[in-house]
Amino acid sequence: MKAAMSLTKPPSQMRREIEEIPVAVERLVSEGQVGILRAAVDIIARDPRFAVTVARGSSDHVCTYLKYCGELLLGLPVASVGPSVASIYKAPLKLDNSLCLSVSQSGKSPDIVEMTRAARRDGALTVALTNDGTSPLAAMADHCLDIHAGPERSVAATKTFVTSAVAGLMLLAEWKGDADLRAAIQNLPDALDRATQIDWPEMRAAVAGKNSLFTLGRGPVWAISNEAALKFKETCQIHAESYSSAEVLHGPVSIVEEGFPVLGFAAGDQAEGALVGIADQIAAKGANVFVTSDKAKHAICLEHVRAGHVLADPIALIVSFYAMVDQVAAERGINPDAPRHLKKVTETL
Amino acid sequence: MKAAMSLTKPPSQMRREIEEIPVAVERLVSEGQVGILRAAVDIIARDPRFAVTVARGSSDHVCTYLKYCGELLLGLPVASVGPSVASIYKAPLKLDNSLCLSVSQSGKSPDIVEMTRAARRDGALTVALTNDGTSPLAAMADHCLDIHAGPERSVAATKTFVTSAVAGLMLLAEWKGDADLRAAIQNLPDALDRATQIDWPEMRAAVAGKNSLFTLGRGPVWAISNEAALKFKETCQIHAESYSSAEVLHGPVSIVEEGFPVLGFAAGDQAEGALVGIADQIAAKGANVFVTSDKAKHAICLEHVRAGHVLADPIALIVSFYAMVDQVAAERGINPDAPRHLKKVTETL
Repeated sequence: MKAAMSLTKPPSQMRREIEEIPVAVERLVSEGQVGILRAAVDIIARDPRFAVTVARGSSDHVCTYLKYCGELLLGLPVASVGPSVASIYKAPLKLDNSLCLSVSQSGKSPDIVEMTRAARRDGALTVALTNDGTSPLAAMADHCLDIHAGPERSVAATKTFVTSAVAGLMLLAEWKGDADLRAAIQNLPDALDRATQIDWPEMRAAVAGKNSLFTLGRGPVWAISNEAALKFKETCQIHAESYSSAEVLHGPVSIVEEGFPVLGFAAGDQAEGALVGIADQIAAKGANVFVTSDKAKHAICLEHVRAGHVLADPIALIVSFYAMVDQVAAERGINPDAPRHLKKVTETL
Repeated sequence: MKAAMSLTKPPSQMRREIEEIPVAVERLVSEGQVGILRAAVDIIARDPRFAVTVARGSSDHVCTYLKYCGELLLGLPVASVGPSVASIYKAPLKLDNSLCLSVSQSGKSPDIVEMTRAARRDGALTVALTNDGTSPLAAMADHCLDIHAGPERSVAATKTFVTSAVAGLMLLAEWKGDADLRAAIQNLPDALDRATQIDWPEMRAAVAGKNSLFTLGRGPVWAISNEAALKFKETCQIHAESYSSAEVLHGPVSIVEEGFPVLGFAAGDQAEGALVGIADQIAAKGANVFVTSDKAKHAICLEHVRAGHVLADPIALIVSFYAMVDQVAAERGINPDAPRHLKKVTETL
């Protein structure tokens, strides 16, 4: 527990919840299995032509991750639908023969519930991932999959992000009948336990005194980059923005100056080389670039855990990121458990 | 031509191209009509169940705009597909009975061409929007719709963003057979001419000396917010990030401090009240919030042109934004025609 012991203060609630992640995932893998299999059976019988996702904040990053996993694993096109389509515009969608996946830790935000209700009315098979099986969202969906995170008190979601992502990945593994992916998921608690011990001191040093940075990803791990950028803002008041490593050269790179920090997330998949190539290019412009790969030439390689399957790799990376960002907040004198202007449940219409 | 005349230097290439927007749209509306109608006839005959979009940078913001328009107008679910699915992962998608819309000013980026090729192979009817009818993308697609922008020399796209958006909107109007929307499109050149005269001096004063800000939107106009944030980065080296006004309270608001600039884009649609409500909430936290609406209580109302149809309003707003951002660049001593680290055609794999 290197990260926790290097603090003089007691660990934050966020840090305690990061340390609970491996146990929460173990609980999900055993206790969540039956519900997930039942949903998979129903989905396979319906054979949806495409999927839509409904979520906000960290939960929407889970959906982006599952979108890439669903597209790469099953060839299933996945559309992220803005909840406003139902909650504000009251516009019906043509969702016959589709799957609607709604993700919300609390299951309470009115716009998420309303969009899910509309999707069901419009013909979608609805599946909800939530940490509250008694929530309005759980009541609304055809299948409610409990993410088994246990109580999460820190405003910044960590455990619930990881367990939502794993629950969705379990569903895709069963839908595909993918034995390799199933095996990697079984081994995730061990991989994630190792990931909690990594907290990137070299990256922490690079963000000291900085107020702006980029995070990068490509493919499924781009969702992890999105989640990391949100957490930098939420818990450290750093303006971090996430880009696909392919997008960043289409304009955003213009704000990169000498010493500008960039954190590239690479999984051990086919995109690793492309991501590392962009990281190296940006490092050559004078930015301070870090990447979770051993293959960089100019960027700095960060320690990382691989999770036994390319689609599971991103989950190990976000756990190490969480361990780091909790420390960055402490180093900036910010309590990550009580971010400025925020509360735990955000309800939007 | 208030904006151009207030500069002591000759207008930038970007400013000249902004002033060409009304004429380019007029040319598109007349010369582009037949090709768009032919594509609409083919699409209606195939009756696609959903659509996917393929693009990067400003062109991807066009796709986000068209996604909302397609969902609200036709109930058609629209998924943005990462080009890496084909170019990096070589993963087939199930695209039978779907429409694939690819948008690229140059029509040259290899990943956009590759994803379009894969979508056609996988069963989609492919439509390309491009400013170069001889490009590899144009050759690849079932229908190539020329956006008729004429030459665009400024690195930062303005004319091609607007003409791509209008071409896509024309296609949706013909698909729906929507007379009101057709009429608004006919009147767009006049509305956009008025929009080029507005350049928000009060917002320009608020961003002087600032390096970080948020842009906000909801529904179709959120795409305009995305485009604005990219242009602030590209041409002014300001770290601007775009959020849905509903998303911004899920974490990002934590970086908002006294005087933090926020630019809220509101169309005259059902989301206007919700967007203005969030703008007012953020203003009450001490941020310096501006909004293109007359309904704000705490935020500052910006002059704006309404375009005769709620789906056309966002296009008028981006034109006024372009007029402003060109001036912000000049005020910061930056040449908006030659952004740091960028070139006109970005080719990614």
